[in-house]
Amino acid sequence: MFKHSQLESVKAWIAHPAHAGMPLHARIQRAVRQLIVDGALGPGKLLPASRALSKSLGVSRDTVEAAYSQLHAEGFIDRRVGSGSFVAQITEFAPGRRISQRDALLRNQAPSLSKRGSAMFRSGGVREMLIPRPFAHGVPETRTFPLQSWERLERQVRKEAGVQTLLHGDPQGTEPLRRAIADYVNLERGARATADRVLVLTSSQQALSLCANMLLDPGEAIFIEDPAYYGARKAFDAAGLECVPIRLDRQGLVIEQIIADPQRAKAVFLTPSHQFPTGATLALDRRLALIEWASRHQAWIIEDDYDSEFHYAGKPTACVQGLDPHDRTIYIGTFTKSLFPGLRIGYAVLPPQLVKPMTAARTLLDGHTAPMAQLTLARFMEGGHFGAHVRSMRSVYAERLDVLDRLIDKHLSGFVEARVPTGGLQMPCVLTGDLPERAAIDAARRVGIELLGLSALHATGKTKAGFLMGFAAYTPSEIEIAVRKLADTFTALKRGSASMRNH
Amino acid sequence: MFKHSQLESVKAWIAHPAHAGMPLHARIQRAVRQLIVDGALGPGKLLPASRALSKSLGVSRDTVEAAYSQLHAEGFIDRRVGSGSFVAQITEFAPGRRISQRDALLRNQAPSLSKRGSAMFRSGGVREMLIPRPFAHGVPETRTFPLQSWERLERQVRKEAGVQTLLHGDPQGTEPLRRAIADYVNLERGARATADRVLVLTSSQQALSLCANMLLDPGEAIFIEDPAYYGARKAFDAAGLECVPIRLDRQGLVIEQIIADPQRAKAVFLTPSHQFPTGATLALDRRLALIEWASRHQAWIIEDDYDSEFHYAGKPTACVQGLDPHDRTIYIGTFTKSLFPGLRIGYAVLPPQLVKPMTAARTLLDGHTAPMAQLTLARFMEGGHFGAHVRSMRSVYAERLDVLDRLIDKHLSGFVEARVPTGGLQMPCVLTGDLPERAAIDAARRVGIELLGLSALHATGKTKAGFLMGFAAYTPSEIEIAVRKLADTFTALKRGSASMRNH
Repeated sequence: MFKHSQLESVKAWIAHPAHAGMPLHARIQRAVRQLIVDGALGPGKLLPASRALSKSLGVSRDTVEAAYSQLHAEGFIDRRVGSGSFVAQITEFAPGRRISQRDALLRNQAPSLSKRGSAMFRSGGVREMLIPRPFAHGVPETRTFPLQSWERLERQVRKEAGVQTLLHGDPQGTEPLRRAIADYVNLERGARATADRVLVLTSSQQALSLCANMLLDPGEAIFIEDPAYYGARKAFDAAGLECVPIRLDRQGLVIEQIIADPQRAKAVFLTPSHQFPTGATLALDRRLALIEWASRHQAWIIEDDYDSEFHYAGKPTACVQGLDPHDRTIYIGTFTKSLFPGLRIGYAVLPPQLVKPMTAARTLLDGHTAPMAQLTLARFMEGGHFGAHVRSMRSVYAERLDVLDRLIDKHLSGFVEARVPTGGLQMPCVLTGDLPERAAIDAARRVGIELLGLSALHATGKTKAGFLMGFAAYTPSEIEIAVRKLADTFTALKRGSASMRNH
Repeated sequence: MFKHSQLESVKAWIAHPAHAGMPLHARIQRAVRQLIVDGALGPGKLLPASRALSKSLGVSRDTVEAAYSQLHAEGFIDRRVGSGSFVAQITEFAPGRRISQRDALLRNQAPSLSKRGSAMFRSGGVREMLIPRPFAHGVPETRTFPLQSWERLERQVRKEAGVQTLLHGDPQGTEPLRRAIADYVNLERGARATADRVLVLTSSQQALSLCANMLLDPGEAIFIEDPAYYGARKAFDAAGLECVPIRLDRQGLVIEQIIADPQRAKAVFLTPSHQFPTGATLALDRRLALIEWASRHQAWIIEDDYDSEFHYAGKPTACVQGLDPHDRTIYIGTFTKSLFPGLRIGYAVLPPQLVKPMTAARTLLDGHTAPMAQLTLARFMEGGHFGAHVRSMRSVYAERLDVLDRLIDKHLSGFVEARVPTGGLQMPCVLTGDLPERAAIDAARRVGIELLGLSALHATGKTKAGFLMGFAAYTPSEIEIAVRKLADTFTALKRGSASMRNH
């Protein structure tokens, strides 16, 4: 028999909006189970007869019977003919199993993560803006994406491949996409790729994580650029690597430090096309010297060519991978910036000896990439849509970069100096006045403008304060509105701090 | 000027079928670049005049000019008015930079992976059959999947969300899908989930890898079932964990060993609904005792409910997560088996305190899951299609299990004994005759039949030889053909080994 409070608790459970999706008998079963699990109904306790409970709850007897048989099937109650239903004799069903004081305390504490887990949590992860607003960086324009062509190709793939697209895919990636990627990087990036050296992944982030784990052990060192792309540094930190920062100049990575201490690290990570965040292009002689170092010391070059599609002044320099006859370079590319972030396809062009190991590792991490998206993308590339889209966005972005540069000159010249890059989706700006970087970024965020501070990207203290401004995803008029707002904000900030000093 | 052999090499490069996709000027540029990079044309060497080269190659002078300007832009050549074009003075362009003997040797050796990378490679990864054939396990029937309904929902999503689906998605998963998953596991699996505790992932494999890394450090121990699901064991090995095998009986995991040495491991991994590979369902009292252990020692329960949708005898027991008031259980589910493998959506229902850390870690590993697939799946669930599909496949699979059981009894009773499970997509069979497991599996593979050996799934030597037979993806007549073929194969094998003994 139920106490009044128990009956009320069952009724409350049944009526709770969160349980509205469940059939009535399931709700009754779950409500009674809750009383048992929480210890409110101890082992051996008699349950109300189904007739009585059905009356109390105003439901049919069959409904209560259905609930009781499920409780019985799951082992929560015993049913004896003629005697009724009893809570099973399971010692764990004891009073006080309700959430204890200790549990409640622990729940509010830090979770018991592993050391590496805590470090990953503390890093904050790699957060992207869900709805891009000026001047969030690294986001392409997607509002004008030729979605209809994409959908048409999707329908073609479904028509031809049908339920085949539902099966497990090749963990290395579907062959047509690997071929299309190889053709593309050979033609446009001067790479030396073949379809059997391409590994299709979810994103360049996954490629970085895979490299970090497969090529280096915890405690081993990797050379990185200083300043560096935060997503790469976090992936290396997460893998327990020691990041050794290497200085940059206008020609990119200053490789003397690597040459001076060549065995310090087993790998180097770099963004040679448009260095993140400075935008510098690595000079040819340095590319070759790096290859020489890697070959001599059997080290690895991890080349992240994340936005090389968008080069505005002349042709982009050929990638390092294409210059490397020694197969020491892993080339990483992504469609997140050249097509759209929701696609979730990135890739690596691997030295032949890494293809099997990396593919095996990928199956351990998450399996493979959805075949449907891969096959659609392959057609999009084969049919020339990809090339056409990149060309058209290249001129759109070149114009937006130009607009941003001119507007900064017009409205923000008292605060910052733009460092116009030759390519990419963002422009670094160096603070020239006495506005502190943190204050400028915080003030901008308060008026809905995103800026990525440069200081935090530097490993060493020797850094120019400033921020990165993404321009690709915003129309000229959106850019103008945001720059004017930024000018007002900075002016107010300056006036405020001046008046603070005067008082 | 080119030597004859150099000109021939340029011509060969241009004519190579692999370069057919490139414009002519790009092919010429790349061919000359190759001569420079390989050291065949040393620093300072004069190149043929564009007019001369255009004649030799039979192309227009503009084409050669385009190739030369790109070489110049990339820094490979210097151009002096009136004097011509010269290979740039870069010391790395020296003879003998062709692939050296040492490189060639190294290339054939084992790649220089990290220790953990080598271990992951050696594990062989988690390979799935690309085109399922009897009796590959863990594969659902996809040939009858209601693809038209799915595509209709896809079109709806595109119509309503449009280019919004192209943006970065919430790394935790889109809200509608998280809500649909929470409703589903609450209703069907007796879980206690809310949308804000669901983390959408690529696969259950990714959930396992995430748990292994976030909850335990290398060298720490995790209790696993013996025998165990190989994908989980490999994920734990890859994370550097020590797997401590726990014996099973007909009621599932024998938890005495855990209770006897409760602090030996910080976590336990189990498949309580239909244990992989035995098919046993974990008894209720053991579920509760496990929760008690986890609560007392602040340990984690990793519950993999990979195929709980397909339970054929009565209702499946409520999941451990729903019985755990202490928030020590991580519930892992997947749509790979209930819908189709190519979807690439799995999920975890997390204790509240793990939601933020696990989501951050996921952004470091690969970012997030494609929004389009998530939104379509959410509608498929909300609209009742998922429930209907699971119900319909449940009766299809129940029949196929029955067919397989009867056919084994009829044709294979001299060799194996079937252990009919109450659910899941595969049935274990124990070898009863003197056929060795390895020989049986190899002979089956030679006639195109896949069997997964049971011995390799055991950590300890105490194991019954046998194999796992997947039945879900094959029609009754496909099952019959394969069983008969297997019977012939085993009979021939037995006769062969008997005649070997007699000679």
